[in-house]
Amino acid sequence: MSKQEKRLSFASDYMRGAHPDILRRLEESNLEKVSGYGRDGITETARDRIRSVCGSPDAMVEFLVGGTQANAVVIGAFLRPYQGVIAAVTGHVSGHEAGAIEAGGHKVLALPQVDGKLQADTVRGFLQDFYGDENHEHMVMPGMVYISQPTESGTLYSKSEIVALRKVCDDYKIPLYLDGARLAYALACPSNDVSLPDIAKLCDVFYIGGTKCGLLFGEAVVIPDAKAVDGFFTMIKQHGALLAKGWLLGLQFDELFRGGLYGRIGETAIKAAERLRGALTEKGYRLCFNSPTNQVFCVMENKALEKIAEKVEYGFWEKFDDEHTVVRFATDWYTTDEEIDALISVL
Amino acid sequence: MSKQEKRLSFASDYMRGAHPDILRRLEESNLEKVSGYGRDGITETARDRIRSVCGSPDAMVEFLVGGTQANAVVIGAFLRPYQGVIAAVTGHVSGHEAGAIEAGGHKVLALPQVDGKLQADTVRGFLQDFYGDENHEHMVMPGMVYISQPTESGTLYSKSEIVALRKVCDDYKIPLYLDGARLAYALACPSNDVSLPDIAKLCDVFYIGGTKCGLLFGEAVVIPDAKAVDGFFTMIKQHGALLAKGWLLGLQFDELFRGGLYGRIGETAIKAAERLRGALTEKGYRLCFNSPTNQVFCVMENKALEKIAEKVEYGFWEKFDDEHTVVRFATDWYTTDEEIDALISVL
Amino acid sequence: MSKQEKRLSFASDYMRGAHPDILRRLEESNLEKVSGYGRDGITETARDRIRSVCGSPDAMVEFLVGGTQANAVVIGAFLRPYQGVIAAVTGHVSGHEAGAIEAGGHKVLALPQVDGKLQADTVRGFLQDFYGDENHEHMVMPGMVYISQPTESGTLYSKSEIVALRKVCDDYKIPLYLDGARLAYALACPSNDVSLPDIAKLCDVFYIGGTKCGLLFGEAVVIPDAKAVDGFFTMIKQHGALLAKGWLLGLQFDELFRGGLYGRIGETAIKAAERLRGALTEKGYRLCFNSPTNQVFCVMENKALEKIAEKVEYGFWEKFDDEHTVVRFATDWYTTDEEIDALISVL
Amino acid sequence: MSKQEKRLSFASDYMRGAHPDILRRLEESNLEKVSGYGRDGITETARDRIRSVCGSPDAMVEFLVGGTQANAVVIGAFLRPYQGVIAAVTGHVSGHEAGAIEAGGHKVLALPQVDGKLQADTVRGFLQDFYGDENHEHMVMPGMVYISQPTESGTLYSKSEIVALRKVCDDYKIPLYLDGARLAYALACPSNDVSLPDIAKLCDVFYIGGTKCGLLFGEAVVIPDAKAVDGFFTMIKQHGALLAKGWLLGLQFDELFRGGLYGRIGETAIKAAERLRGALTEKGYRLCFNSPTNQVFCVMENKALEKIAEKVEYGFWEKFDDEHTVVRFATDWYTTDEEIDALISVL
Repeated sequence: MSKQEKRLSFASDYMRGAHPDILRRLEESNLEKVSGYGRDGITETARDRIRSVCGSPDAMVEFLVGGTQANAVVIGAFLRPYQGVIAAVTGHVSGHEAGAIEAGGHKVLALPQVDGKLQADTVRGFLQDFYGDENHEHMVMPGMVYISQPTESGTLYSKSEIVALRKVCDDYKIPLYLDGARLAYALACPSNDVSLPDIAKLCDVFYIGGTKCGLLFGEAVVIPDAKAVDGFFTMIKQHGALLAKGWLLGLQFDELFRGGLYGRIGETAIKAAERLRGALTEKGYRLCFNSPTNQVFCVMENKALEKIAEKVEYGFWEKFDDEHTVVRFATDWYTTDEEIDALISVL
Repeated sequence: MSKQEKRLSFASDYMRGAHPDILRRLEESNLEKVSGYGRDGITETARDRIRSVCGSPDAMVEFLVGGTQANAVVIGAFLRPYQGVIAAVTGHVSGHEAGAIEAGGHKVLALPQVDGKLQADTVRGFLQDFYGDENHEHMVMPGMVYISQPTESGTLYSKSEIVALRKVCDDYKIPLYLDGARLAYALACPSNDVSLPDIAKLCDVFYIGGTKCGLLFGEAVVIPDAKAVDGFFTMIKQHGALLAKGWLLGLQFDELFRGGLYGRIGETAIKAAERLRGALTEKGYRLCFNSPTNQVFCVMENKALEKIAEKVEYGFWEKFDDEHTVVRFATDWYTTDEEIDALISVL
Repeated sequence: MSKQEKRLSFASDYMRGAHPDILRRLEESNLEKVSGYGRDGITETARDRIRSVCGSPDAMVEFLVGGTQANAVVIGAFLRPYQGVIAAVTGHVSGHEAGAIEAGGHKVLALPQVDGKLQADTVRGFLQDFYGDENHEHMVMPGMVYISQPTESGTLYSKSEIVALRKVCDDYKIPLYLDGARLAYALACPSNDVSLPDIAKLCDVFYIGGTKCGLLFGEAVVIPDAKAVDGFFTMIKQHGALLAKGWLLGLQFDELFRGGLYGRIGETAIKAAERLRGALTEKGYRLCFNSPTNQVFCVMENKALEKIAEKVEYGFWEKFDDEHTVVRFATDWYTTDEEIDALISVL
Repeated sequence: MSKQEKRLSFASDYMRGAHPDILRRLEESNLEKVSGYGRDGITETARDRIRSVCGSPDAMVEFLVGGTQANAVVIGAFLRPYQGVIAAVTGHVSGHEAGAIEAGGHKVLALPQVDGKLQADTVRGFLQDFYGDENHEHMVMPGMVYISQPTESGTLYSKSEIVALRKVCDDYKIPLYLDGARLAYALACPSNDVSLPDIAKLCDVFYIGGTKCGLLFGEAVVIPDAKAVDGFFTMIKQHGALLAKGWLLGLQFDELFRGGLYGRIGETAIKAAERLRGALTEKGYRLCFNSPTNQVFCVMENKALEKIAEKVEYGFWEKFDDEHTVVRFATDWYTTDEEIDALISVL
């Protein structure tokens, strides 16, 4: 019994297992016994590597299994019960987490976005209006700003944009949270100017995604000022997000940050995406959202799509008009030239 | 960098990775692309194997990452907001899940236990008193009975005990939920008389644990009558319990139930535990809780423990008296004769 | 010590105590002893009167203290945990209840509105898109439609508009909930064509507001098909919404529906509002939102407002432009001709 | 239509409306207009009176409608999401609030009691065990101690007992919360040695109950150090506990604390209860729980009760043995000598 799917697939970047180097590490120590819940030596080493690569020596680093739970735990830990989280209306927490944030009691305060990005001015205007409303104590207090890098649309915040958001957050004394589910693919973009240390300096909390970036699964939550939050370990447990075999996460992240693997993973996917974008443009397709990352969005004729769907699995994004659809092709840390060639040949 | 710990360790049964057969399966298909969220062919095959081994052809089977989240999702999906879950005061949901059930809005109605087990008469008495209280509409309505097999104390419910609980549940029209985090170790006990088909017939929902029984991680929730609950997939997502690479779970469970591995895993641990119990008894130690499963509880002198602790990691269970402690030694699916010999030699 | 405020006030319709007839009833039986929690004879009589006036003989009728808690209890009782409630973005539950709905775990699915009203086509389009999205199981399922009559903007749904919403709800099998905090003022409008029996026929649940309509406080939740929901009494208790002296609510509603008082209360407020609207129009002010109810919205120059504010308290509604503001004047069940004259004289 | 019940009733202390002085105040200003949500002058005056009588000039004082919601708001505002509240197993929050605390996400950590009271040693032992358990981060952290004065059994904490609890709370840095639903009846007891200023000094938060102590309804939450909690107003709103006509609460409490009414209310009930206890003892009945307050508990033969029930409504408390029952007779702020005589004559 194989798990192979017949068609070529570019539907997402979480369709393969783990980078072979990661799997090799798991095999090496598979039968050794290690203490549970991330309180082991290898996980501690992974924490140190992340602190080091982020230039954030005192950071709290905790490893969780997935993104939705990382968002729910972080937001639940940072907010007071009468507060909500500001996010772009297209943000992952706004619409695609089945109400995980609301299940924790918090409203997502969804604001308009541009290219998937929350603009500092939009946030500031919202906060001004909120505090300018004499009834604001009857409303959910904005208690955090949530962004993701790259965004749901594959776009990137520039450093100056994040600095501007940081300024708003400082002015209103609310934390800034960056969801880095696909952060490796942002960092590897030639046009990116935001480094991990920048993020650690500008954000109160962020996570470095592993599930979509070469690991079997796992996300590393980083809180540069460890004192910014309390009871975080118990919050993880309460959310059902504490892996008994925590070292499974620690060991994967240790490998990811041991010898440059994290960087190579990003580069592989970005190069593949760039080749694909070049080919699409050459063939006259219209690209969308100006994404420089591993997600390639383009407009396709519905009729053409029917034929393409026979040979390649893509991601449906949204209706463009009655005769066109926006689709997504995602590359990953293993996408080969052959795969891209095969895809191009059917488009 | 190794994750090896120097001391001999019997602290728990989730200290190793996965059974080598499981890891081999992951390697085989690691680079193939598979659809996400458990909606792939291999996961469907795993579901069918579980339906088959449980004699429950129409069951809903969903795979989650861990036990606390399985409990929170199942209880949250089955209960109405004004209901709580009955559990032994020693039950895992009562005290060791950091309030995960309460975080979902539900009270754990903790009842007295005997050898870690909830007695049918205790449950019936509680329900009689509840409905006999004219103010019961001011109180949390009992909406489910939670048990685990084996229990926290490693003990086993007999078939007649579960039948009796089922009868109470039928009389009061509330579902019975069995947490099978360590179920493999119950099924492999010579003294056990409760089979998987028995469980599927007697319970409204249960889960077959993988994390402590040979998998890297994963629990299979089984709902024999799939129509007993609605929106379960979305509930999983909302709890942050939906693994993007759902096939990681499906593939592991497929291997576990493909060729008898699940049975062998249980047997290995039980045989090792029996050898250990024999040696402990022979050396004059007092065993506790009458556990026939892979958890061996015994009373140790505190002074002796200090010396033992230098050579072997054990689980602290509880204070026995001022000079003695109850400790736990757990065997697992890979415990070797050499490990048991080494342990015995230091006791 | 008086509670009198010096300025003329039209800031809201909940600034006075109760209609004198209501207070008289409270006095009459003040020292008699009555059973608690709404399980008394007078409350049962009030239930019957409401069933009768709604033409809904089998309805469940429960009395709660306030509107936010009525909304939280009703929505919490009708929804499953993975569902959310559709509301106009301007709806009371969307922005002005401090996250009470989210605190109960449910997302408010805020949709665009016209004149404060949710359009059937908007709701249908949203539901079509939702179920058309292949990832909808990853999203909050719409499980109820919330409207209010009159709306936050004082506007009224016509019967045909509610019928159209009902049709959408039927097509998607979700309940329709009508918040009637100010319902008396809708029913008394000459332009209104939706009666209480219409509402009881078209909605799965609604509440008849008392706090803003002549009572000291209190809202009557009506569920025409009592079997549509379970555990409602316990839900009320759990939300802290069960008044020990439930008969305080029953007695007030009994009086409200005993001899036509409810109708007279609405008429008084509407006549006063119509006089005010006439005077404002005559003076050249611009009215907003086309509200025919007891809330009169108009555009005022900021400079003029400063002077007006010295003599009359009004409600700030929203900024109109840099030099103008939308303000609200609310009449109530006791507003006199003298008060309206006094207000007109300062405008 | 009268709300009169035919039988003599001692079932509870919330069966009448309000003390006549309270009702008179409501009538006096009924038609005046007052600002909403407790932001009016009369409510501010009531706050000052309470600050004064408590010797706590900087206290935050907020008025809520009922006890369950006061408990839910206070506990929700003071706890972090990973914390629970310690209470006696017989405490109101433990069993009689329909899971309101759990609905807010918090576990009630129910501890054994003596005469309805939580012993300082019991709490200290629990906290020592909790922090002594190396797995305590996997468990709900105790974040508050809840007591009530008088207790559910009508008993009183002595000052030294509360001082001892305070000491434990100080040692573990957790707040102490006192539920004073029936506090007037404690303060009026000759045997009581705990004053309002004592409570304000020893507790981090408490509430002075009005519903059972002479008001139509209402509870005054007092937080001596107003900075001990944030966002409290919004929390009240979120819980549906913010009364639009907040001055209804302010005005009642203003009257209660204006001229000694609060003291007289307590004395009336206590004198009546003492007469009743005397008569019961004289007639050879066995009293229970050693309650010196307005709740009189005694053991009755079941056969005798049947006859008594024809003439007097009492509160069923609990089964004593197969032939006896513990019942409760509650006096209130208006209980007359004639009522007590009538009751005694049927016993």
